[in-house]
This record gives sequence, C-alpha cells and structure tokens, in this order.
Amino acid sequence: PGRQDAWLQSVPLCLAGFVVQGSTGEAPYLTQQERLEVMSYVRQAVPKDKLLLAGSGCESTQGTIEMTERMAEAGADAALVVTPCYFRGGMTSTALIHHYTQVAEASPIPVVLYSVPANTSLELPTEAAIVLAQHPNIVGLKDSGGDVTRLGLLVHKTQNEDFQVLAGSAGFLLAAYTVGAVGGICALANVLGAPLCQMERLWRAGRWDEARELQHRLIEPNMAVTRRFGISGLKQAMEWFGYSGGPCRAPLLPLTEAQVSELRQDFTSNGWL
Amino acid sequence: PGRQDAWLQSVPLCLAGFVVQGSTGEAPYLTQQERLEVMSYVRQAVPKDKLLLAGSGCESTQGTIEMTERMAEAGADAALVVTPCYFRGGMTSTALIHHYTQVAEASPIPVVLYSVPANTSLELPTEAAIVLAQHPNIVGLKDSGGDVTRLGLLVHKTQNEDFQVLAGSAGFLLAAYTVGAVGGICALANVLGAPLCQMERLWRAGRWDEARELQHRLIEPNMAVTRRFGISGLKQAMEWFGYSGGPCRAPLLPLTEAQVSELRQDFTSNGWL
Amino acid sequence: PGRQDAWLQSVPLCLAGFVVQGSTGEAPYLTQQERLEVMSYVRQAVPKDKLLLAGSGCESTQGTIEMTERMAEAGADAALVVTPCYFRGGMTSTALIHHYTQVAEASPIPVVLYSVPANTSLELPTEAAIVLAQHPNIVGLKDSGGDVTRLGLLVHKTQNEDFQVLAGSAGFLLAAYTVGAVGGICALANVLGAPLCQMERLWRAGRWDEARELQHRLIEPNMAVTRRFGISGLKQAMEWFGYSGGPCRAPLLPLTEAQVSELRQDFTSNGWL
Amino acid sequence: PGRQDAWLQSVPLCLAGFVVQGSTGEAPYLTQQERLEVMSYVRQAVPKDKLLLAGSGCESTQGTIEMTERMAEAGADAALVVTPCYFRGGMTSTALIHHYTQVAEASPIPVVLYSVPANTSLELPTEAAIVLAQHPNIVGLKDSGGDVTRLGLLVHKTQNEDFQVLAGSAGFLLAAYTVGAVGGICALANVLGAPLCQMERLWRAGRWDEARELQHRLIEPNMAVTRRFGISGLKQAMEWFGYSGGPCRAPLLPLTEAQVSELRQDFTSNGWL
Repeated sequence: PGRQDAWLQSVPLCLAGFVVQGSTGEAPYLTQQERLEVMSYVRQAVPKDKLLLAGSGCESTQGTIEMTERMAEAGADAALVVTPCYFRGGMTSTALIHHYTQVAEASPIPVVLYSVPANTSLELPTEAAIVLAQHPNIVGLKDSGGDVTRLGLLVHKTQNEDFQVLAGSAGFLLAAYTVGAVGGICALANVLGAPLCQMERLWRAGRWDEARELQHRLIEPNMAVTRRFGISGLKQAMEWFGYSGGPCRAPLLPLTEAQVSELRQDFTSNGWL
Repeated sequence: PGRQDAWLQSVPLCLAGFVVQGSTGEAPYLTQQERLEVMSYVRQAVPKDKLLLAGSGCESTQGTIEMTERMAEAGADAALVVTPCYFRGGMTSTALIHHYTQVAEASPIPVVLYSVPANTSLELPTEAAIVLAQHPNIVGLKDSGGDVTRLGLLVHKTQNEDFQVLAGSAGFLLAAYTVGAVGGICALANVLGAPLCQMERLWRAGRWDEARELQHRLIEPNMAVTRRFGISGLKQAMEWFGYSGGPCRAPLLPLTEAQVSELRQDFTSNGWL
Repeated sequence: PGRQDAWLQSVPLCLAGFVVQGSTGEAPYLTQQERLEVMSYVRQAVPKDKLLLAGSGCESTQGTIEMTERMAEAGADAALVVTPCYFRGGMTSTALIHHYTQVAEASPIPVVLYSVPANTSLELPTEAAIVLAQHPNIVGLKDSGGDVTRLGLLVHKTQNEDFQVLAGSAGFLLAAYTVGAVGGICALANVLGAPLCQMERLWRAGRWDEARELQHRLIEPNMAVTRRFGISGLKQAMEWFGYSGGPCRAPLLPLTEAQVSELRQDFTSNGWL
Repeated sequence: PGRQDAWLQSVPLCLAGFVVQGSTGEAPYLTQQERLEVMSYVRQAVPKDKLLLAGSGCESTQGTIEMTERMAEAGADAALVVTPCYFRGGMTSTALIHHYTQVAEASPIPVVLYSVPANTSLELPTEAAIVLAQHPNIVGLKDSGGDVTRLGLLVHKTQNEDFQVLAGSAGFLLAAYTVGAVGGICALANVLGAPLCQMERLWRAGRWDEARELQHRLIEPNMAVTRRFGISGLKQAMEWFGYSGGPCRAPLLPLTEAQVSELRQDFTSNGWL
C-alpha cells in the first residue's frame, strides 16, 4: 500500500487518468469478483479529477453488458471494451457492430473500443470502427495494432464525430499524434509516465527534434515491457522504478535471469536507469 | 427436452461419449454457473457407460484448476483443457508445460489436452505435447489443427506412453486413423454421428474404398458447420436432422437466408439431406 | 558424375519419375540458360520409361509459357507450374485460373499445378484447382501444403476429371493415399526413395500397421530436409546416403556443425543411419 | 512517348528522383533484357540532376550482383535491392546479412535495402538492417511494411551511420518524417507526386495541421493504388491524371468496372478528381 501510494503520488500530475483491467492488468486471470474489487480499490485511491477507465470486455455480449454495468457502479468513468475473439471466424464487421452497439446502448457510462491484435489475433475492422464512431455512447478507440496509416484514416473518417483515437502503445505515440490521435493508453506509462507526458508537451510546443529524440529512447523500453517480455517484464521494471510490480499469475512465468538482464539493458542503454 | 431425448437415444449406440463445453458448446459465452449446470444436466441424461468430457480450460492456471475440480464434482469423467491464449506472446512451451502440469497434478480426473488454433491462434507446440504425454494424469490430446503430419509425429513420439491422439474435426478423421489416432472429437457428430461411426467401422474392417468415399462426403458438411458457418451453421443443421439447435448467443449471429441455402447445399450435394 | 550415376541406378526401379527444378532443385537461383541445361542433362541420363517433370513456373504468364515450351523441347514429359506469388494481393482465383488456362492452352506438354505455400505464402485456392482440373491439358496438382482435408476434397470434387492429386511432401504421404491421392512428389525421395516406394506397396497390400510404422519413421527426416533445414539439409543428407549433394547457392547458407548434428539425429533416431 | 514526356515535365521540379523496377514497375514480369532496356530508356529521359534508382534484386546472390552491375552500367545512381524470399524458411538474419554484404561489396553503386512484406511475406529483420547500415556501400532502406515503431527504432539505432530510412508507401509518410525518416519512395507519387512534395514542405515549415490534413486525404487514394487494387489500380488512375498507365501484364488482371468505380471514389471523395 505504501508503495502504491508512492506511485499514485508520482504520476497524477501529468496523466489524464488510468485504466484498470486492460490487457496489462491481467484481467483474463482475475475472477469476476476480483475484477470489481480491484476497480473499487483504485476508485478510492485515485483523485476524482482523474479519469478512470475499466476494462469490461467479455466474450459474450450479455457478459460484457453486465460487467460494464458493474464497473460503472464501482465508479468507472468509462468502459474499455476489448473485441471478443474466441470464435474469430464469426467476428465479422456485422457481428462486432452488433456487439458494440448492444453494449453501448446498455452501458451507463461511455464506451471506448479496444483493438489489440497481439492478444486477440483480431483487428476491429476499420469500417466497423467508423460505423461505431457514430454512436453517441461510443467515444473513442484504443488501437494497439501499431498501424499508423489506419489511425490516420480513422481520424479522417470520424472527424465529424465526437470520437477520440488513442494510441494503444508508447512505441508509436508520437507518430499517432502526428496523424491526429489525441492521446495514448500505454503500458509503459506504468514506469515511464513522466517522459510520455513530456513528449506530448514537446510535441504540442513544436519542439519536434526533442520530441523525436524522446520517442526514440522510449521504443526499446516499450518493446521490452510489451511484446518482448510482456507483463512479467513490466512488473520487473516497476520494481526498479520504485513501484510494486509483484509476480504475474500463471500461466505467465516470471522472467529468467538472462531475460532480466536483457530487460535492464533496454532501459539502461536508453538512459532510463 | 423431448427432442433432446431423441438426440440422446439416436446416438449413444455408436459414440463412445460426449463433450460438454468444448468450443462448439459455446463455453466462453456461459457463466461459470451455467457451465456447471449444463454439465450436471447432461450427466444425468447420459448413460453411465458413455464417457463424459468437460471443457474446463480458463485463461489462468488457478481458474482452470478450480473449474476442473467443479466439473469433476458434477460428474465429468475427464477434463478437456484448451490452451490459454490471450497473452499468446508468453505462452511458450515452458509456460504451457507448467500450466498443464499444475492442472494435471490438481485434477481429480484425467486431463485431455486441447489444441484448436482456429479459435486460439495458438498451437500447443509438438514438443510440449510430447513432454506432457509423460504425465500419468494427462491421457490424450484433441488436436483440431488438421496437420496430419503432426498427428503422426505425436503418435510416434508418444508410443511408449498411455496417451491417445484424437482428431479434433471430422474432415481429417480417416487420415488421422491412418497415422495412429484412436478416435475423434468432432462437431459434425452432432448431426452426422452415425456416418462417423460407420467410417471407423469400415476402416477397421479394411474396407478402404468405402471408408474413403464416406470421408469424401463428410468434408463439405464438416467445413460448413465449422470454419465456414461455425456454431450457427451447426445449430441450423441440427434442426434439419431432428434435433434442437436453437440460436447462438451474441455476438455470434444467426445465419442469413443466403447462408442457410449454402449450408443446405453442402449437405444435399453430398447426399445427407 | 560417377556419384550421379550411382544415384540414378539406385532409384529408378521403384520411382515413377523425376522432377527437375521443383523447389528443391533451386530453380529460382538458376539462370534461364542453366535451367534448360540441367533439364537436357537429366533427360539424357534418365531412362525414357521414367517420367520427367520440369518446373517451368515464372511470375509472368508469358514467361511461364516460354519456359514451358523450352522445357518441352528439352525433353520434359510434363510441366510442374508453381503459382506466381510476388503480387499476391492480385493473385485471386480469377487471376490464377486465367494464368493456368493460358499456360495449359499454349503448352505442348501436360501441366501439373503446384501449390507450395511454405515458399510462396500463397495457396492455390481449392475452387480454382477444381475449375482448372476440367482443362484437358491440366492433369494434376502437387500440393505441398499438408492439409489433407483439402486433398480429400480435391479428390472428391475432381473424381469425374482426368486429374491426379499428388502429395507434395513425404510427411503426409500415407494420409494422402488414404484420401485418394495417387502418389507423391517428395524432396525426401532424394535420400529415402526406396522406403517411400515400400510404404506405397505396404499400403496397397493392405499391410496398414507396417505402412504406418514406416510413415512414422519418415516424418522427422522429412521435416529435417524441408521446413527445418531446407535444401541445405537435404544436400548434407545426400552425402551420407552416397549421393552427391554439394553446396547450395547463396543466399542459402550451409548448415552449421550444430545443425548437422541435429539433422543426423533425425535420421539416426529413426533408424535410417 | 508524348504523354511520358508530359509526366517527366510535370514532376521533376519537386521529386528528388525516380525508381525503375521497384514492385510497381512490375520487375518480376520483365525479362532480364527488358529490365535493362527500360532502365536505359529512363536514364536518357530523366535529367541528370535527378537520382535514378534501379530495382536489381533477384532471388540468388549471384543473380543480384550481376543485375546490379548491369543496372549501374545502364546509368543507375543506386540499386534498390529487395529481399530474396522464395526460400523464406532459410532467409534468416545471418543469410540476409551475408546476401546484402556480398551485393554491396560487388556493387559499383550504392545499395538501398528494400523490405516489402506485402509482396515477399518476409520482413528484413530489424537487427539485420542495423548491422547492414554499417556497411559503407549500403546507404539506406526503403521500408514498405508500415510499422512506424520499427522505422523510429531503425533511425535511432543507425544515427551514427550514413544511412537513410525511407518510407515505402505514402500512407504513413508524414508519420515516418516525424520519427526521423528523410523521405519516401511511394507508388502514389506516380499520380499525386506534387501533393506528396507539398506535404513534406508543410512538415518542414512547421505547418502541422495542414500537413496532417493533406496526409489524411492521401490515405485512401494510396490504399487504392497499393493493397486494394494494386498496380492495375495505379495504371488506371494514371490515365485520369493525364499520364499513360497502360495495361498490366498477366497474371495481373485489369480492373472490373465496379473496381474502377470504387477506385475513382477513393480519389473523388478526397478531392483529387
């Protein structure tokens, strides 16, 4: 708890809010009950002026609706709803539009779409996202796929909607700003939140060279805590930055010593440790 | 219920058993409670001399262990445990061996591995399956990937273990028998169970030409109720064969009229309707 | 040359013929002139009662037609025509049907379709193969994809045509026979041709257990000389079996010592060395 | 020829140079002789102060070296060398580093690496590109994969080398500038070269909103002439813009009327026609 407080005190000044139970929050490994308990705990700890998003996606439409309602009751400001994916052969644009529309209709809080093909092996089709952006209770998309052409197209085709495109990973955050994304939801912010905020400030101030140099130094650490070493890598890095990472749940394994060394190298060689 | 009884009375004579909550059972769309209720209902309906397998895989190791224990209490003879897949970047052979070993150690009933890349975008690595086959409480593998070279290799490398390789789909069942699989767990058996049993009998009797002709006539219907039209297709077909399919849960959609026509064509052109 | 003669004398008794410039023949690494010279040399060396197929596929339709005509002049009995693949986004069923029809119309020798997704990242669509099977100058398909369900469907849907389905790799040869393939074109035959012939004889004689055991022992050696170590692996293995493999052309690299050991292990552990 | 001259007169003012026989130049469909003739023709037509790059990649190292030498003789200023890909299983980082090093050693003109996974189903590994960037005769990379995170990392890791990272497609050109790319080689420049130049000028002038709006309007036309309708789409569009596109060679097919309409829509809806 003490270290958690340290974390909360170090970041709120620059971050607009937090996500509970996105992919990095290990949502698929928690029980329904645990998911709600974590949400309630964080809601109490986080100041009211910070946005709190709750991952509430389940495979079934009905399950997603129920989890979204409960997350709202537990204090979430918005719901981050990952694409269902197990029966991916049936997850056509039509099916996904139907799913998200049902969820948005039922949800007491705004819905943010969430496309993360590295985990789901499924990309929310661009045309489905464009249709869904017209729904008044669907307010944005977290896109972790890294295809910045697609991000630009989504911004372009939803420019008349009240719809926010958000970069889903820190590796392409600066590029995403360039094409019109308004922000990012980044696993890396758990350890390097301040530099991510600084990069946005540099970008908005027109200090492009500094922004680019900062982006460059963030790519390898970001890869290390996402695709390369995953949540286990992020939790290890959190320890180095004074937070409490703790172990992952199985079947995710802790890093080997060799992996810890490589992870550390990705931070030290870029000047972060 | 009346039609369910009809189904049960028509198939048990040739099928060795049943699976509750495999992929076709829409397990990811049921609550924990519903999964157990379905299991209990089927256990009461199915004669004791038929094997009853329960899908009990969850994303987390702990969740899988608990679901397996509950399924055993509800009367399952064995557990069919699908590979966890959401954090697929971390699902190395080492992680999956650790996962299944923990589950097998804790499970009061035998464990059957389940690899279904069409749904999980992850194949249980061959070398992991070979290691796991040595565990006394892991008794087999349902492999739905359709790579019969791999099936043959698995049979070859586990020949000294008490381990059964099972074809996970009817399209390659005859070929799987040829390379040493001992049976199959097939969605198509929900509508064409008798011909599948007949194909095995023909094969065991050395009547290869007849077995092959039968296999040929089963491929298109099988594709139709799996990768082409999925569970919605199977449920529609069940209606035609006198069973009760009913609707899928959302986000899976019912078939369009055009799809129903194509589905029917796949059965009629092969002489099944 | 002496060793080449040894090879020719050891295999013709059981093999129906040979392929020059399939994938394993490194066709993409030879000049047009070299391709024809190799063909002429082999035509002189191989007895006339053995079929000689020439790989003649190029990216363009016109190029394929010209190479096919030249290969026919050089003595090829049939042309093995791989799918063009560089502009794979445009290689629709319509485009491929058009391509192969043009080639078959122009070719003085029968055409065998060749689908090898491991090399081309493109599978000749099943529906295209079924349409093409109706052409009088298209006589078969070498399918190296390993999807035996597809092989069975192709046999089923072309049963009224004069069209032969051939397994493109030794790993699934027995399974392919089971579903109606009439033979195979296998890289492994360069070193283990006799056992492949024997497997077919056992299969035709109804000695299934022996055929299966033989198939099992061939899977690992086949993987080793195809997907695992590729042509470099096959050429190394040829040295062990008394043939002359020689080096691959760059950019393919010779095996490292560690790879040679692993390759050898795949043969020795299955009783072939 | 008249229309070709028109094209040459309309673009040179802003473009730094031209590529002959990149993917869009249909290089795989030309004979060796044709490739050189096209190069010679263009060299005569293009002013000497414009860079002329020649696609010279072949599957074999030796073939690539010879084509590179001939292209240099025909007047190419630099060689654009696509990754070999047919034996992709063997195209490891080690093999590709060996290949490109041999080519760069032998080449009388500077070498530009070319990674285009949409066509080759192979990405030049990042670590291989970083090693190759150290070679004095390897001066850059055209990367068409669209992964801007990777582009940023490549710029970061080669900052001490004389090495240029170039965006390989217009859809992510602005984002690529943001992370340090110095330019682009874009199929779309065949029809919308002037707006692409203008986007760069806006970017360098710090007029970000205008640059972004321009980028947005270029995404759909770019998709239309690349992944959606390919070279056939580009050639059709060239007709509309007063150039001479002409037909593609088979097996690429001309567009259907419906496709022409969709293509036109992608240009008109973005204000280009």
